[in-house]
Amino acid sequence: MTEVATSLQEEKESRKSSSRIPVAVLGATGSVGQRFVQLLEHHPWFRLQEVIASERSAGKPYGDAADWRLDTPLPPDVGSFVVRSLGAPIESRIVFSGLDSSVAGEAEDDYADRGCAVISNSRNHRLDPDVPLLIPEINADHLQALETQRKRRKGKGYIVTNPNCSTVGLAMAMAPIERQHGIESLHVSTMQAISGAGYAGVPSFAILDNVIPFISGEEEKIEREPLRILGRWDNGFHDVQIRISAQTNRVPVLDGHLLCISLGFRNREDLRRHFTIEALIEDVISGLENFEGEPQQRGLPSAPAHPIVVMRENDRPQPRLDRERENGMSVTVGRIRPCPILDVRMVALVHNTIRGAAGAAILNAELLKARGMLPD
Amino acid sequence: MTEVATSLQEEKESRKSSSRIPVAVLGATGSVGQRFVQLLEHHPWFRLQEVIASERSAGKPYGDAADWRLDTPLPPDVGSFVVRSLGAPIESRIVFSGLDSSVAGEAEDDYADRGCAVISNSRNHRLDPDVPLLIPEINADHLQALETQRKRRKGKGYIVTNPNCSTVGLAMAMAPIERQHGIESLHVSTMQAISGAGYAGVPSFAILDNVIPFISGEEEKIEREPLRILGRWDNGFHDVQIRISAQTNRVPVLDGHLLCISLGFRNREDLRRHFTIEALIEDVISGLENFEGEPQQRGLPSAPAHPIVVMRENDRPQPRLDRERENGMSVTVGRIRPCPILDVRMVALVHNTIRGAAGAAILNAELLKARGMLPD
Amino acid sequence: MTEVATSLQEEKESRKSSSRIPVAVLGATGSVGQRFVQLLEHHPWFRLQEVIASERSAGKPYGDAADWRLDTPLPPDVGSFVVRSLGAPIESRIVFSGLDSSVAGEAEDDYADRGCAVISNSRNHRLDPDVPLLIPEINADHLQALETQRKRRKGKGYIVTNPNCSTVGLAMAMAPIERQHGIESLHVSTMQAISGAGYAGVPSFAILDNVIPFISGEEEKIEREPLRILGRWDNGFHDVQIRISAQTNRVPVLDGHLLCISLGFRNREDLRRHFTIEALIEDVISGLENFEGEPQQRGLPSAPAHPIVVMRENDRPQPRLDRERENGMSVTVGRIRPCPILDVRMVALVHNTIRGAAGAAILNAELLKARGMLPD
Amino acid sequence: MTEVATSLQEEKESRKSSSRIPVAVLGATGSVGQRFVQLLEHHPWFRLQEVIASERSAGKPYGDAADWRLDTPLPPDVGSFVVRSLGAPIESRIVFSGLDSSVAGEAEDDYADRGCAVISNSRNHRLDPDVPLLIPEINADHLQALETQRKRRKGKGYIVTNPNCSTVGLAMAMAPIERQHGIESLHVSTMQAISGAGYAGVPSFAILDNVIPFISGEEEKIEREPLRILGRWDNGFHDVQIRISAQTNRVPVLDGHLLCISLGFRNREDLRRHFTIEALIEDVISGLENFEGEPQQRGLPSAPAHPIVVMRENDRPQPRLDRERENGMSVTVGRIRPCPILDVRMVALVHNTIRGAAGAAILNAELLKARGMLPD
Repeated sequence: MTEVATSLQEEKESRKSSSRIPVAVLGATGSVGQRFVQLLEHHPWFRLQEVIASERSAGKPYGDAADWRLDTPLPPDVGSFVVRSLGAPIESRIVFSGLDSSVAGEAEDDYADRGCAVISNSRNHRLDPDVPLLIPEINADHLQALETQRKRRKGKGYIVTNPNCSTVGLAMAMAPIERQHGIESLHVSTMQAISGAGYAGVPSFAILDNVIPFISGEEEKIEREPLRILGRWDNGFHDVQIRISAQTNRVPVLDGHLLCISLGFRNREDLRRHFTIEALIEDVISGLENFEGEPQQRGLPSAPAHPIVVMRENDRPQPRLDRERENGMSVTVGRIRPCPILDVRMVALVHNTIRGAAGAAILNAELLKARGMLPD
Repeated sequence: MTEVATSLQEEKESRKSSSRIPVAVLGATGSVGQRFVQLLEHHPWFRLQEVIASERSAGKPYGDAADWRLDTPLPPDVGSFVVRSLGAPIESRIVFSGLDSSVAGEAEDDYADRGCAVISNSRNHRLDPDVPLLIPEINADHLQALETQRKRRKGKGYIVTNPNCSTVGLAMAMAPIERQHGIESLHVSTMQAISGAGYAGVPSFAILDNVIPFISGEEEKIEREPLRILGRWDNGFHDVQIRISAQTNRVPVLDGHLLCISLGFRNREDLRRHFTIEALIEDVISGLENFEGEPQQRGLPSAPAHPIVVMRENDRPQPRLDRERENGMSVTVGRIRPCPILDVRMVALVHNTIRGAAGAAILNAELLKARGMLPD
Repeated sequence: MTEVATSLQEEKESRKSSSRIPVAVLGATGSVGQRFVQLLEHHPWFRLQEVIASERSAGKPYGDAADWRLDTPLPPDVGSFVVRSLGAPIESRIVFSGLDSSVAGEAEDDYADRGCAVISNSRNHRLDPDVPLLIPEINADHLQALETQRKRRKGKGYIVTNPNCSTVGLAMAMAPIERQHGIESLHVSTMQAISGAGYAGVPSFAILDNVIPFISGEEEKIEREPLRILGRWDNGFHDVQIRISAQTNRVPVLDGHLLCISLGFRNREDLRRHFTIEALIEDVISGLENFEGEPQQRGLPSAPAHPIVVMRENDRPQPRLDRERENGMSVTVGRIRPCPILDVRMVALVHNTIRGAAGAAILNAELLKARGMLPD
Repeated sequence: MTEVATSLQEEKESRKSSSRIPVAVLGATGSVGQRFVQLLEHHPWFRLQEVIASERSAGKPYGDAADWRLDTPLPPDVGSFVVRSLGAPIESRIVFSGLDSSVAGEAEDDYADRGCAVISNSRNHRLDPDVPLLIPEINADHLQALETQRKRRKGKGYIVTNPNCSTVGLAMAMAPIERQHGIESLHVSTMQAISGAGYAGVPSFAILDNVIPFISGEEEKIEREPLRILGRWDNGFHDVQIRISAQTNRVPVLDGHLLCISLGFRNREDLRRHFTIEALIEDVISGLENFEGEPQQRGLPSAPAHPIVVMRENDRPQPRLDRERENGMSVTVGRIRPCPILDVRMVALVHNTIRGAAGAAILNAELLKARGMLPD
């Protein structure tokens, strides 16, 4: 029997096993929802049991309701799941949410109040005063906020969110530098993939042979969310102080947000008096390369061995060539060099629908499971 | 007879007329060379008479030697011109150069030494101490350097250059601001079209569904050339002092370089003590909208009525929609707003092979003609 | 004063003139509607006076209601027109329709019944028994059907339609061959631009790095419409007999439908007994090159000098390079060569939103005007 | 230890093992050569030992010589292999060739004469009278020709070729139909990916927003090669008689050739007298779905479980969504329906650099190994 056949056999058996935790996906027909379905197909801990979507899709088999657009086939069993409508009773206690922000706010609160762990990719609750905005490698300690949140909800349910897709890439690349030397100012210019706008978000006639230098609400998120992520929890969230300037652009790329970053150190005068810029850059590089956190220490199933991969070629990272690193869970960084205005420049790439959305949420759930914080 | 027919008739007669000045194009088969041929087809002052290219093309009809890739037909008379080799004797005294930088240095010097006005798009002589790096709206007075240059060459010939394609867009958008308030620091992140690399410069397999965050030598040019352009001539070039940081990217766009710009004023503390940022931004906008120079005052044939067009929509300029403004000779600017780190942010667009290359050179030649500085 | 300035001046005066016939555009905010607005801007005979769209846009200035996506600026006067809703009273007697087929059927009948000449691009009435499906170079005599139609409507109003965008290119290229030798069978495989589906018709995530081998309803139209167009009117439409097989594909191209055609002559055995295939192909080429009709004979303003342009290069026509020939009104044809199965193969290109939609309708209106068939 | 880590460990050990057969790749730096390197990385039977390329690359580490463009990382050990020049002595007895056809003819003969099994993707020897043009599912019996070829070479070496990338897709889809009912005529119109022209074969400026309706030499190959593949060996190759008409186009797609096919049965009058077209189409579908051959029966490592996958959705197959089926080794077919001119129409898709090139060659080598026909 070939290796491939063996592995298929094992996988089938593993799926049959009832030991995996049943989960539901909210907004399952959308582009982030489809990524959840794809990434959960072979997940060792979680088993997709329920798919929930808007009224329009409810009652249909998922295979009919979802216009499946990913380049792996729709898992056949999921294709026959009947889509349930938002608000219907569900059995799963773990709920992944890829809901549109027009409905996510209320719906996610509802499931949390019912006692579910809602692991959300939507923006609605990201800045709530007791909702963790979580990147497990960076701020796992923010999960302390759940104690407060559960008290508020008077139950075991809660919401945990992951950041905006661009923010994930930016915050990951900045975290080790912020911890080493502190960051005072941060300029970022993005080139973002069309999948970030959802399946039908960008008409082809708008983007072919074109760039659109505007993405609604995006700059505000990128300028705000990292402050909380890199900040700390102490009976409340305390933001870090960084001045961030973001200019966002949509480019004709399928997946993968590319960021041109320029940053200034917090104690730049002091630092540059004592160290050459070359030495500081070596520090930055080794900080990025050695960066890891609880997901790596605990060996979580979706954790990349290297959350940040530093590339030495002068023309990398590139979205099409590098977005799939470690199953799309690594952020790749390159062109680390001095900046004539601030201190250091670099380019970073994040797979926006994996590390920047569905994969981020699944890693969040894995951390909660490993810490024993999922409801029974 | 319809209007179109009338105009065709007029145009034919005009072309026959011997009153137009004969010109030659060096590097005529390349992508900038083809733009020269296209833009000269209906030019009221200049008449293309000779096409010059590398040994490989010499002796062939231009229609066979050039792999014509523009979306207007090759002018039929030019198609039958026999391509001459570099160095061959020519009749024209005006020479446009779209030569590759590997050969431009020596060849352009050679034609200038023979007494020709060489109007070059190549980078080789841009920073020579007596060669104008000319944008006629900004630094027409730099033509004073020609007196020095002609003395050096002991004749009437000379070289005049236009800047790098991205630099043109940047320098145009910065010139009115530099003159109003002064600029201390300038961050620019570019998204550049594939035509900037020449016809075969970017393989499709490299750029489809991708962005390449590196363009060889480009950042150096963008960080250096504006200093001379915005500087002054006084028996030598005196650079302006601006700290510029450029991050360049290649995107899957045919024509049109888009620039995300962030700038800090020279006397920022003073300025911001006396004015609100809103007032400063209104200043910047009116400075851009009212910007004009000698080409507009003289009504040069290729001069755009508005060298800078400010767009108020929040998602403009866009390469495909805005690059052809005023026949590709206007720079469009939008999203002018405060920057959390420096002072003002904006987005600018330049048609890289027209305003940023062949059109720029032709406008330079028109200025020289209007000033009576072309050799007889 | 420069040539450009003079021409602008003339144009302004011409627009002020009240001698141009006022016209309305139905469905003015859509992609075909925008092309109508663009093509009418400088039209010598017609003057856009009213824009009509769905309830959603009614009451707004056109500049706000339309998401203008063409690469020439929105004509400023039109931008301030207030959009009227479908069914509202209008002054114009000439109505161009770019309505979506979900509403076009009834609305167009309504305006025709009110006495308007409705020049429609929609499919709804194309096959009605007394509605001309008009390509003026081919079947101007089908306008005889209007007598019947007007009787039915008991007034001076009527509907005239132009064919589907792909059909126009196919029928144009086939008309001279059908008249020379007759066509028995016709195989066509299309590669169609995204603008054919309307502005938001094709999500970018669906088509980037992809081809979609299906366009709803398109094959049926291509297999049916040419039969009427190439047929004759004799107190009713009599279709020509051709077996047509169409396979349609959507490709990542902005504008321009490309058709791979293979055809068999009606009397193929007879023909090929008497002529070599080379001789037949020479016949086909000269038939295509010499093809013209009433628009050329009458010198209609939008009539291309050459309705069909035959290209000799072995890799042409190409959408991006050739779609704009004669302002997008010529069909370009190339690679005319023998077919191992049928008789002759070729490639044809049509600009789908100009010759295949808005430009086609305007040419239809020009013919009606020249023949004195427009209502007063 | 995570699952991934375990599997990496196993894989490393497996690679160390000397039990895998050492192989060389000719033309290793090109686009097909890179696919060979990628596909051999984890191959259970073959171990890449030597990389051979042109003089220009010889002596360099492969990582420097090859401009690696695939979306999986270059295998690190291969990156440090020193590239050997064509003609240098090699140790491997199995040689995969992705050489350019300008040099493949002589070089492949040379290695075969030295006793190597040359498994070639190049076109040069495909139609030699004793060289198998092999698709293992279709004509494994053509390997009988090797006996003749070895005699000619007076040794154990030989050349085996795989077809042109488009031909593989066409021949696979046609084989079951040819065997069921026979095919008399075959019309195919292709939309081919840019990777088919090699890494730098198609400039981006040529293909963005465009289709090129010509690929040099391609139509000839598609019209000729299937005749031999579907024919038989009986002391010489005997072609099948099918009239094939091919029209080829290059489209802006990275990987995956899409074919619009229309075919007529050999005994069409007889067939259509006895069967409805619906019944014939059901036959065709079940023939395609049940198609398999020696690779499936022997369970070769690269053999897809289903060499042909029939899709029922009306808009499939699509290159981006379906090219990776079964690791790129399946041909997907859809839209099987009647043709108004011939009998049956369909759309087929083949991954051009996997099933249509490197993957095809590796499957050929696996068949030779399984049959014991590789030299020791």
